[in-house]
Parts: sequence; structure tokens; C-alpha cells
Amino acid sequence: MRTVRLILAYDGSAYAGWQMQANTLTVQQVLEDALRQVTGGEVIRPVASSRTDAGVHALGQLVSFTTQSKLPADVFCRALNAVLPDDISIIEAADAPFGFHAIRDTIGKRYRYVVQHGKPRDLFARAYAWHVPQTLAIDAMQEAARGLVGTHDFCAFENQGSERESTVRTVHELVCLPRRINGADHLHIEISGNGFLYNMVRNITGTLVSVGRGKHPPEWPAQVLASGDRRLGGMTAPPQGLVLLHVDYREQ
Amino acid sequence: MRTVRLILAYDGSAYAGWQMQANTLTVQQVLEDALRQVTGGEVIRPVASSRTDAGVHALGQLVSFTTQSKLPADVFCRALNAVLPDDISIIEAADAPFGFHAIRDTIGKRYRYVVQHGKPRDLFARAYAWHVPQTLAIDAMQEAARGLVGTHDFCAFENQGSERESTVRTVHELVCLPRRINGADHLHIEISGNGFLYNMVRNITGTLVSVGRGKHPPEWPAQVLASGDRRLGGMTAPPQGLVLLHVDYREQ
Repeated sequence: MRTVRLILAYDGSAYAGWQMQANTLTVQQVLEDALRQVTGGEVIRPVASSRTDAGVHALGQLVSFTTQSKLPADVFCRALNAVLPDDISIIEAADAPFGFHAIRDTIGKRYRYVVQHGKPRDLFARAYAWHVPQTLAIDAMQEAARGLVGTHDFCAFENQGSERESTVRTVHELVCLPRRINGADHLHIEISGNGFLYNMVRNITGTLVSVGRGKHPPEWPAQVLASGDRRLGGMTAPPQGLVLLHVDYREQ
Repeated sequence: MRTVRLILAYDGSAYAGWQMQANTLTVQQVLEDALRQVTGGEVIRPVASSRTDAGVHALGQLVSFTTQSKLPADVFCRALNAVLPDDISIIEAADAPFGFHAIRDTIGKRYRYVVQHGKPRDLFARAYAWHVPQTLAIDAMQEAARGLVGTHDFCAFENQGSERESTVRTVHELVCLPRRINGADHLHIEISGNGFLYNMVRNITGTLVSVGRGKHPPEWPAQVLASGDRRLGGMTAPPQGLVLLHVDYREQ
């Protein structure tokens, strides 16, 4: 037996998220089918660092699995890409120390949330961005973002649906980057931290966008954070704007 | 009766092109259905300046139609957008001089062809770009492009399937613009002219990309042009990279 590590990219539009579920198509299921094909029938259960929701994308998802296959890692990569559909792609495959585990050995993640703001709506971005028709005040959003960086109890930005021991997390960086793409104004909200609660990035985004729309002052997100009350913050931004960019892991 | 002019944007991914055909979904059909809905049953046949192929997109398609409806143009715009699907959008609606015709009164068009070049493939661009795995030599392509500007017989860049009286056209501008989008190298080939033959933009693109790959010198596209022989040029680039950007029309 050996452990293999993959870096995976996918367009989440067609999938009910990463995690296997009965009667729906998930990225995990498609990857498991591909692994069975390239190993000639071995049943392999891949584990991913981030359990992305339906419609959420990844450019750098970290995946691990154990296998009896003797295929060299680069052959694994090419063979998987040859059988995977167009919207899932292996960026890299490598042998990992035996027992490496994509959830347990993750020490940090970076996400991007893409907002297209102003009119008209960019048709080509509709599967990859949240369209907000108002032009956003990005300086106010960046000022607000600074109030969320650091080690805090982020329970005010967690949606129900998960059971975690602690809701304390460290956000290393949170930046609002204006981008001009195909004649439309996009905003990339990039966040890195040691871990994220359920819907935390989408809830932070909804709250920052409320500031960008002028509905709340830049001090408000830090007040929501301090309150510990999810009901006080902004909406949960829709899934299609979210991309898992990168996962940092512990080298053993 | 009056004549109305629309500027239309659409994502062509889901459509068998603009033109109505039996048993397939086309943009013209969907727009005709929407016009029937907002006028309370009037049968209106919209005409478009460019008969885009299956999978080709538009940001500025010009459409005209005549109607008995008395709806003000801005109400037409909002009402159509309320019933059209997510991938078709009216940018503008305006009253036009009676008898204005989107094909007859067109005097020029501008297209963009989007190539994503180099590795890895940008998953999110796959419906909006042609992926060429090699990194392209853009300077050589730009030099080659200069040899195609002007008034020429472009029959070497026309695919069979249309019956036109003349294959002489004027290309006003043809530029290769490098773009960096989401960490990937994109190339926008933008071309404007007084008219385009069937598949002309996609054939010019395939020929320029051959130069960018180093398979032919920069002088080659002008030689293909002079030969008048379609068989000598590059491949027809795939449809999903093509976008109709803008149509110029005669003001009466």
C-alpha cells in the first residue's frame, strides 16, 4: 500500500459539491470512478481537504488516497486526466509519505470569492461570479476587511450544519482586489487562514458586500464578529463565486 | 407598424447558433418566443446582423424587427429581459427609422477570438476560449496579422456553405492582444471590417495560431491570402472562442 497526493481543479457548476451523496453527481464520485478505471478495478476512496458545496469551484483542491497500484505518480496523473470529464482536471500527482491525509495534514487554505459588480451583467461570468448590480465601494470594503484579520471566534460567520469543537480560527489575510475583465468590473475577495467554518467565506463576503453597497459603515463587520450572532451579518453569498485556490499542508 | 432595434448579448454555449432551425434551440427562436410573450401574442420575426454559428457568443449583436406593439422601447427592454433565460440579455432597445434592417443596414462588425495558451488548461474558460497547450509567439502573430489588413479577396479564408456574390472584403484592423486572466495566458485576436465571409474569423485565427506555434513564418498568412486556396491555410478554430463584439450600422 502507498499514499498518493493530488492537486485537483474543477468547475463545480455541474456537481452537488465534493462529497459523495446518494443519487447526485459529486466530484468525489467521479474521481472514485476514474481511479477504479485507471487501476483496473481497485476501490479507492479519495479524501479532500475542503468539502466544497454544490456549485463551488476549485483550482487547488488537495486530495489523498491509499492504493495498491504500482503506477508511477505521473502516469496516474495522465491516466486520470484521460478518463476524467472536461470540468475536472488533475494538476499534479505525487507520492506522499505513507498515511498522509488531506484533511488531517492541512494547515491552511486560500479562497477567492469573485463578485461582478455594476451593470450590465457579464453573461460569461454567471457560473463563476456573483453579480451585484451596484458599483461597490471597494476602499470601504478593504477597510472593513482589516477588522476581520487575526485570531477570533468566527461563530458569527458560521451557518448551521456542522459540528465543530471550536469556532476559533485565524485569518492571515483578507484583501479586496479590483479586476477589470472583459469590460466588466470584477472584485476578487481573497482570504487565507488556518481553517474555515461552514460557509464562512460566503458569509464574510455577503457582509463585506453590504458595506460596499453603502448599507453599513466599514466598522460594522468587526461588530458582527464581536457579537457572535449570525443573524446580524450580511447574506450568504451564492456558491458560484467561490473558488478554493490553494491548500497548505504539513510536510512529514 | 414600427421598427425596433435591439443590441443583444448571449452565451451561445446552449444554442445551435442564431438562425431558426427545426428541432434545435436557437437564439432567434428564444427571442421570437419572448417577443410573442411581451406583445401578448404578436408573431414577430427578428433579424440579426450576424448569423452566428452554434457555440459562438455575442456581446453586441444587432437585431431589428417590425411590430404593431405600442410598448415604449425601454419597456420592451425590461419586459424582454424579464422573460429571457439567463444566457440571453437585451443591452439596449430603441426605435429605429421605419424599415431599418439589421442585415441590410450593417456597415461593419468587430469580432474577438479568445485563445487560452500554455498549460494548464483554464477550466473556467473552456466555454469561452480555444485552449492551445503551447505558449504562442504573439509578436510573430501580430506581424502576420498586418499582412491581412486592407481590401482583399478573402476566399482563401472562407469555408464552403454560403453563396455570396463577392468574396472581397475590407479588414480595417486585426490585432493580437495578450491578456493575463486568472493566472492564465489569454490572447484576444480582435478584427474589424466591413463584412466577413463564412468562418472567416475562425479561419484567420487558425492560420495565425499556426504562426504562433512556430509551424509557419509570419509571411505565410499573406501568402495563403494571395493563393486564394482554402486548403493551404490553418485549421478552422473552434466556435467557443468567438464573440461578436459590435456592429456598426448606417444611420438613415
